[in-house]
Amino acid sequence: MSLDPKVASRLKRTPDGLVPAIVQQYDTGEVLMLAWMDDEALHRTLTTGRATYWSRSRSAYWVKGDTSGHVQHVKSVALDCDGDTVLLKVDQVGAACHTGDRTCFDADQLPLS
Amino acid sequence: MSLDPKVASRLKRTPDGLVPAIVQQYDTGEVLMLAWMDDEALHRTLTTGRATYWSRSRSAYWVKGDTSGHVQHVKSVALDCDGDTVLLKVDQVGAACHTGDRTCFDADQLPLS
Repeated sequence: MSLDPKVASRLKRTPDGLVPAIVQQYDTGEVLMLAWMDDEALHRTLTTGRATYWSRSRSAYWVKGDTSGHVQHVKSVALDCDGDTVLLKVDQVGAACHTGDRTCFDADQLPLS
Repeated sequence: MSLDPKVASRLKRTPDGLVPAIVQQYDTGEVLMLAWMDDEALHRTLTTGRATYWSRSRSAYWVKGDTSGHVQHVKSVALDCDGDTVLLKVDQVGAACHTGDRTCFDADQLPLS
């Protein structure tokens, strides 16, 4: 089994075959993190209900929470108008960020001037 | 004037010099769209208060709303833990999506199985 061809045909991928996935807490609306998916990671995410990514640094699939316990239960997945970005709404167990922060955007606000 | 070197030194860019920018409505939490920034687009966004992107298809800077009127007033900008993604909180005037939808993720929900 692989990604539904009707979905696959709508994806516009980077040269290395990936699409960015924005990950949002489904009820609070917090943006938790951004990760990357290839077709297989998207297929696994849609069919297992567990957010699954492609790690660009490790060149491996990565089921969020498998080592940390900080699982993401998938509530919905949407493709954007151009087919080049995915929005995942999830229920995040614990911290989304490897630093221990709730989201990957908590620590580093840039100054507006 | 260009991007603050302290910020620039923390950015991890794609091979073509860009970082993805997640754009979120600051009060409702809606994820509106994803766009791309180089250092100069981020600098302009931080200093003008108007969301400014790099258009990969047109190879040009793009001030959101300049042609459509659908301006994004920037409320905050955060860098993620890895320095490779930006989160913009904005006040979106009108539709964020070129299709006329409020967000770029409204039209295409993928089925979970």
